[in-house]
Amino acid sequence: MNATRASRHTKPDQTALVPLLDELVRRFGDRVATSEAVRLQHGHSLTWVANQPPDMVVYPRTTEEVSEIVRLCLRHDVPVIPFGTGTSLEGHINAPYGGVCVDLSLMKRIVSVHEEDLDCVVEAGVTRKELNEHLRDKGLFFPIDPGADASIGGMVATRASGTNAVRYGTMRDAVLSLTVVLPDGEVIRTASRAKKSSAGYDLTRLFVGSEGTLGIVTEITLRLHGIPEAISAGICPFPNVKSACDAVIMTIQSGIPVARIELLDELQVKAVNLYSKLSLPESPLLLLEFHGSASGVQEQAERFGDIAAEFGGGPFEWATKPEERTRLWQARHDAYWAARGLRPGAQSVATDVCVPISRLAECVDETKRDIAASGLIAPIVGHVGDGNFHVQPLVNTDDPAEVEACEAFVDRLVRRALAMEGTCTGEHGVGQKKMKYLQVEHGAGALALMRALKQAVDPHNILNPGKIVAF
Amino acid sequence: MNATRASRHTKPDQTALVPLLDELVRRFGDRVATSEAVRLQHGHSLTWVANQPPDMVVYPRTTEEVSEIVRLCLRHDVPVIPFGTGTSLEGHINAPYGGVCVDLSLMKRIVSVHEEDLDCVVEAGVTRKELNEHLRDKGLFFPIDPGADASIGGMVATRASGTNAVRYGTMRDAVLSLTVVLPDGEVIRTASRAKKSSAGYDLTRLFVGSEGTLGIVTEITLRLHGIPEAISAGICPFPNVKSACDAVIMTIQSGIPVARIELLDELQVKAVNLYSKLSLPESPLLLLEFHGSASGVQEQAERFGDIAAEFGGGPFEWATKPEERTRLWQARHDAYWAARGLRPGAQSVATDVCVPISRLAECVDETKRDIAASGLIAPIVGHVGDGNFHVQPLVNTDDPAEVEACEAFVDRLVRRALAMEGTCTGEHGVGQKKMKYLQVEHGAGALALMRALKQAVDPHNILNPGKIVAF
Repeated sequence: MNATRASRHTKPDQTALVPLLDELVRRFGDRVATSEAVRLQHGHSLTWVANQPPDMVVYPRTTEEVSEIVRLCLRHDVPVIPFGTGTSLEGHINAPYGGVCVDLSLMKRIVSVHEEDLDCVVEAGVTRKELNEHLRDKGLFFPIDPGADASIGGMVATRASGTNAVRYGTMRDAVLSLTVVLPDGEVIRTASRAKKSSAGYDLTRLFVGSEGTLGIVTEITLRLHGIPEAISAGICPFPNVKSACDAVIMTIQSGIPVARIELLDELQVKAVNLYSKLSLPESPLLLLEFHGSASGVQEQAERFGDIAAEFGGGPFEWATKPEERTRLWQARHDAYWAARGLRPGAQSVATDVCVPISRLAECVDETKRDIAASGLIAPIVGHVGDGNFHVQPLVNTDDPAEVEACEAFVDRLVRRALAMEGTCTGEHGVGQKKMKYLQVEHGAGALALMRALKQAVDPHNILNPGKIVAF
Repeated sequence: MNATRASRHTKPDQTALVPLLDELVRRFGDRVATSEAVRLQHGHSLTWVANQPPDMVVYPRTTEEVSEIVRLCLRHDVPVIPFGTGTSLEGHINAPYGGVCVDLSLMKRIVSVHEEDLDCVVEAGVTRKELNEHLRDKGLFFPIDPGADASIGGMVATRASGTNAVRYGTMRDAVLSLTVVLPDGEVIRTASRAKKSSAGYDLTRLFVGSEGTLGIVTEITLRLHGIPEAISAGICPFPNVKSACDAVIMTIQSGIPVARIELLDELQVKAVNLYSKLSLPESPLLLLEFHGSASGVQEQAERFGDIAAEFGGGPFEWATKPEERTRLWQARHDAYWAARGLRPGAQSVATDVCVPISRLAECVDETKRDIAASGLIAPIVGHVGDGNFHVQPLVNTDDPAEVEACEAFVDRLVRRALAMEGTCTGEHGVGQKKMKYLQVEHGAGALALMRALKQAVDPHNILNPGKIVAF
């Protein structure tokens, strides 16, 4: 083993892989896979990054097994890539330098639910839907909803959020503590189960969003919330993006504790009209959800209605009955597949940025003009309460000119967001595709500090090399 | 300079201080102080840790000046201790190895307030009351309230929170971004102004709670909130701590968005009856505050009243008019001085722990029995919505036996909290006094990781040595 490896630019020596595979098979038997199908399935997430398969895939069942695998890989100087459900979007789990993919999908235990403390402890392979299924009878729920049925471990890794982050926060806020296998195989717990602490450096937040480059998260203590007594939901068209965003700003400034507030642009509305056979006016649409007491959610909806009218929006239609709410929100639920329906057969490229909400309308409008000028088909959906929005260009990835045009568009999108004091990614993460923006966003000094952290925690660059701060 | 200093156990060579002082005086003139009075004032916070004065105090006006000071100190291998208002509680700003205290009190600029984004940018020396004074006209407020009128920089350093963390979170949640001077003088910004981001390691949270050991925070971007349309406040006595805590748990489980929920034990109630000439029943008392719309705060108060009655509490008295609310909360506002009134002339030792709320009643009750058995006078005040409580033993610090008894009591308190899956400090921080508990709380592996982070960021151990993870 090279004890001072400063960079990793090549795949591990094939001769090193043979004894490693031997040891893994001896220890884990048929929980080691090397077939091409399995490797390809683990070398590619929901992204346009080309497939980069690992050399083998192992399925541990416990934290101790993960630790054993990491120790073996370190001894053989072979990269380790943690894998949840493969729903990340920026090439997070590709294996550009090969190595061992650690698939955590067998780690599905819900270890404990503490109803009085509104928290639970789960293994990394539990998905958010599985967790919510388990919690429903107890009147509790886990609010973070990134769309895909991602694993909780993966959601920690990418600092995921989604539609109701405006009310309940992101994974940064949802995680109380983590069990982590460090790059040398050591197992640590980052914090106690207390709701808050000032006892030393925030190790929990060091790992949330670290995309498997600093440690492998195997167990997570999560904050939960009581299922709201009542929910109201509504939709409201606006004449333009600016008026919709102004209504969002006023809603939040007024302290209305909106649970979800989503924007669809007119192209996205057109797409759902076609796909879901709706007849929504084809102009920017806000979709809202309010959580609280029965009278509280009524009051919230009514107050939002007044604000919407003030900014020229309407008619505002809202409801509290579940089937009515589902009908109103159908445009949002169907957004992804509706968008793909705009260009059947094309690849959907999901990208996201986030800006201060005061700049959101300007950023979305400039982006729409850019889309038009680029000749792209790219609907927009936004978690606008946070200033976060997604653009989903539909691209024929077999056409190099189209791919290049799309890459150039994403580049302008990111630089536009950064120029508006925003970030290159609000919730998807860096993976491979957004590494080049970290220096522009954070500056050379802050990026050097990130590199120093990686070097301190993973000096042999074993964990998910080639991501975030590759060195 | 010793480029590989691994530990700092001695004060800097006095001969190194002379040229450093010369350079600082040449550069900063009368903004360098060496008088004993000033040094002693900066060598001691609100704590029973003995005074350990720095060798000199410098008052920078800008981030660039802080950077210059740090570079000079690094060149001369002299420790740097950042100082806000000196209101920390565990010996955070003592200078056990001497060095240069960087007093940030001249850095008082409120750089910008972004009303639409509900954020602001302030320099580290601005205090929370100064900020709220500035914000009032804009209908905004900064919610974190640790009691003392601490500087925002100091509150970042200790990951402060206080009475309304149960609704608005702690400094961990309140900070969007930081400007930090690193131990080599480099200036970085940790994040953009976006409300959320997945763009790399969470540098912001690395510095929040790092107590000046990793960098000097000079500028802070903070989340703000709209001043609530209406506020209701109430008080409710309970037969015992258990019933009060059960009511708190039910309140939070029910999703009532309580803004503050504080517990005073019967000794603390007795103290305020004496001090403030009140006639509250001398049993555990909950004090509450609700924020929302006019009908919302009424509904919240009424729902809490029902819950309190269910657990044997009452009468629940509440009000919405400011003067009435102030009257109801007087017991809380006067708590500190009322407690000191129980034993005039004694030193007040403030300490805190935090446990999962399901263990809170048990932890408080055991602690009360321990206080009685120890012969201490020690009232209890708790931010019970978070499971966080303070014990305030009143000690004659000239009596070594009393000091020893108090130290032993605090030690049992911390170990009791840790045994209940809690933390050795919910909001005061580690400083010097709680360093010995970090290994018990986090384990050797996690503490070693904290040390590795300190070593990576501050390899020469220049910044606030002897705190958190002294090495």
